[in-house]
Amino acid sequence: MYRLVGTLSGVNTSERLIESTRELLWERGYVGTSPKAIQQRAGAGQGSMYHHFSGKPDLALAAIRRTAEELRAAAEAGFRAPGTALQRITAYLRRERDVLRGCPVGRLTQDPDVMADPVLRQPVEDTFAWLRTRIAEVLAEGRERGELTAALDPAATATTVVAVLQGGYVLARAANDSAPFDQAVDGVLNLLAAHTADAG
Amino acid sequence: MYRLVGTLSGVNTSERLIESTRELLWERGYVGTSPKAIQQRAGAGQGSMYHHFSGKPDLALAAIRRTAEELRAAAEAGFRAPGTALQRITAYLRRERDVLRGCPVGRLTQDPDVMADPVLRQPVEDTFAWLRTRIAEVLAEGRERGELTAALDPAATATTVVAVLQGGYVLARAANDSAPFDQAVDGVLNLLAAHTADAG
Repeated sequence: MYRLVGTLSGVNTSERLIESTRELLWERGYVGTSPKAIQQRAGAGQGSMYHHFSGKPDLALAAIRRTAEELRAAAEAGFRAPGTALQRITAYLRRERDVLRGCPVGRLTQDPDVMADPVLRQPVEDTFAWLRTRIAEVLAEGRERGELTAALDPAATATTVVAVLQGGYVLARAANDSAPFDQAVDGVLNLLAAHTADAG
Repeated sequence: MYRLVGTLSGVNTSERLIESTRELLWERGYVGTSPKAIQQRAGAGQGSMYHHFSGKPDLALAAIRRTAEELRAAAEAGFRAPGTALQRITAYLRRERDVLRGCPVGRLTQDPDVMADPVLRQPVEDTFAWLRTRIAEVLAEGRERGELTAALDPAATATTVVAVLQGGYVLARAANDSAPFDQAVDGVLNLLAAHTADAG
């Protein structure tokens, strides 16, 4: 216990407040996350919280931005993997995920308070816009290098790829089994494989 | 008003209770839907409700089953449309939808109380399993008729198609715009078109 408290004290208060807000948003949603609960979980006083943040919306924005940044960093690792465009998209789609837990950013689209506030919705919108753009870039590179056929539409295909992941989470949750997620990914990769230049 | 009351009275009480439960589940989720609120919206007394249903879980199950049946009927209309397999899948994917409202069955996967109860989750799981099977059948028929290439995997592709729709709703909600949904559908149809026998 002493060691745990010591470690927690070492992290700065602002960080602890953001991490506590992320956990509570995930567990209880925006409406169920009170400033009091955030302070208790972070081990921070009310004065300390309002020293760092103007209030719950400000903290929620910091928490959502942090979640979005982590998703981008994890995705970018896949996109920067070595190999062809299809291999890089495959690395992104097949990276290890806690499928039944769901996508931390996608799940925010089901929080009515987050979606109703344009400021809180913005990082969610931006994350998916960025993902679609990055995947379109990877596909366009593959087309330029002659790996993928000219018939492939990078922008539309990229949106399809992102939708497959988000929909895969929905199907896995409905089945309480990650198998439909994996099958949805297999399916889109098979479809993409038909567009590789040597598949003609 | 007299006419409205007259019309409502004409519908039987059991029907009114089911429809009221569907509306409340949609608006407030399972946890926010009280037996009292259902009775008030249905204009039915407590005795009447317990005459028809054993309680809230029983009514919720009837409501979820009704929603699932409607989705199946609407989807089946697309699958039974005339034309090739790809035309029938296109009819299903492009049928008019209130995209920003979301999928009435898919949204239930975000209701923690519905997902935690195996009996309430069952119709949600069954609906997606049925959709995947029906689309796989349509694709397999297209392959047998020589419309689609042998390289197309009907089962995996069907799961991808269902995931694209569900993920399309997520992306539309994130953007507060139905355009990403339409683009995800365009993308998967383009990918499927590359598997038509005359595209090779």
